[in-house]
Amino acid sequence: MLKAAIIGSGNVAEHLAPALKKGGYKITQVYTRNRNSGKELTKKTGAVLIHSFEEISNENQIVFICVSDHSIAEVASNIPIGNYIVVHTSGSTHLDILKQYHKKCGVFYPLQTFTKGIKTDWKKIPICIEGSNKAITDKLEEIAENIGGPIYKINSKKRQQIHLAAVFANNFSNACYNMAATLLMKNKVDFKILLPLIDQTALKTHFSTPQQLQTGPARRNDQKVIKEHLTLLNEDKELANVYKQISKYIVHHHSND
Amino acid sequence: MLKAAIIGSGNVAEHLAPALKKGGYKITQVYTRNRNSGKELTKKTGAVLIHSFEEISNENQIVFICVSDHSIAEVASNIPIGNYIVVHTSGSTHLDILKQYHKKCGVFYPLQTFTKGIKTDWKKIPICIEGSNKAITDKLEEIAENIGGPIYKINSKKRQQIHLAAVFANNFSNACYNMAATLLMKNKVDFKILLPLIDQTALKTHFSTPQQLQTGPARRNDQKVIKEHLTLLNEDKELANVYKQISKYIVHHHSND
Repeated sequence: MLKAAIIGSGNVAEHLAPALKKGGYKITQVYTRNRNSGKELTKKTGAVLIHSFEEISNENQIVFICVSDHSIAEVASNIPIGNYIVVHTSGSTHLDILKQYHKKCGVFYPLQTFTKGIKTDWKKIPICIEGSNKAITDKLEEIAENIGGPIYKINSKKRQQIHLAAVFANNFSNACYNMAATLLMKNKVDFKILLPLIDQTALKTHFSTPQQLQTGPARRNDQKVIKEHLTLLNEDKELANVYKQISKYIVHHHSND
Repeated sequence: MLKAAIIGSGNVAEHLAPALKKGGYKITQVYTRNRNSGKELTKKTGAVLIHSFEEISNENQIVFICVSDHSIAEVASNIPIGNYIVVHTSGSTHLDILKQYHKKCGVFYPLQTFTKGIKTDWKKIPICIEGSNKAITDKLEEIAENIGGPIYKINSKKRQQIHLAAVFANNFSNACYNMAATLLMKNKVDFKILLPLIDQTALKTHFSTPQQLQTGPARRNDQKVIKEHLTLLNEDKELANVYKQISKYIVHHHSND
């Protein structure tokens, strides 16, 4: 049975560790600076909580670094050289960051948004993998197969582009929901009025391209409604600027329709 | 049995007419300039296709105007004064536009995005109603109850604000999907890699607020990753501008977290 250690106890670790366990792997150790979430994770997985990198056992075949992007290099430098493969789970971090410290390394990037307490179906999570050699890529592919959905063998450069696309699709669409929430709150309307619309907007992308699905005043280049909307946004320069910028993008990208 | 006429054969008419029929109402007549979609709609509903507004029968108790916003006033002015209630289905159009021509009038605004050929579950569509008097509001409420989901009695001013929020939640999040699609296409990655992420981003709004759900480099004010992303967007000034604007919004709205 493959043995794995997990570094971190944030959103990715919290979701990945149980998925690995369910996939038939043994989580032996969890290292984290956060004692509370660390205890939770060891309880869930049966792993031992460790408090220094030196304790990482050479019995592990793989060590998953599940920390924020800016800490990956530091963590990698602190993990003792061992027989294990050292992988990170970040979309935007180049494999070279690990290569500096560990010859056997790779990337295991689940393309999903993880939130504490909200379940995700791993069978639907695309996993982008990259190994420092073919044997490692094969190993990561085997692990991904046992826990997740579609597998993409992707190099660091391409993964960075995919991560950027994910920022638009996830972070920025959520920011748009938040702007909508701000507007509704000012008018004392419950945000839940928008949930069916948000659901349907997402669902439609399964049937057609976003280019074809675009609707709204900017799509029709309806300057009268756009002007009315900007008048309504008069008191919120920030929202008005976002409105103008995205509307400009939509008008431009549908000018030849 | 309540008898209704429909003006228009676009996305709203195409979805509303069958829902009314299913709700127990009789669609008697359809007026449209588009012969093809008009024929489709009469076939679906058993209505008669009419070619002039004068043909609208006084036997109808209600006439639904389902045309684009900028045509509503003209259509309303052409509908002969009758015993029927004249309603429009627009989020951004004031009831006063109809009042000029028809004493008995109202608004029946289904807060959803409709696309030809993609089904929607009317039980989940919030319907915003407004009548020129209480009896009409009650009538619209009864119709909404028979075909749809939650009902909101909303005046024109508030409805306009909700419509603006819907532009952010629907039009702008779809535009973000489209930007992501552009980036993936450049890198020859299939857009479907993002579908589980898009689904999950929408689903999460059922469990928490968008403010709490925000993740990503801007949420963490991670200027290193933001700078890297802007370098990747070097060749696309338009996307870079949207990236900057929305990131600025996110950083600002999470500066006190």
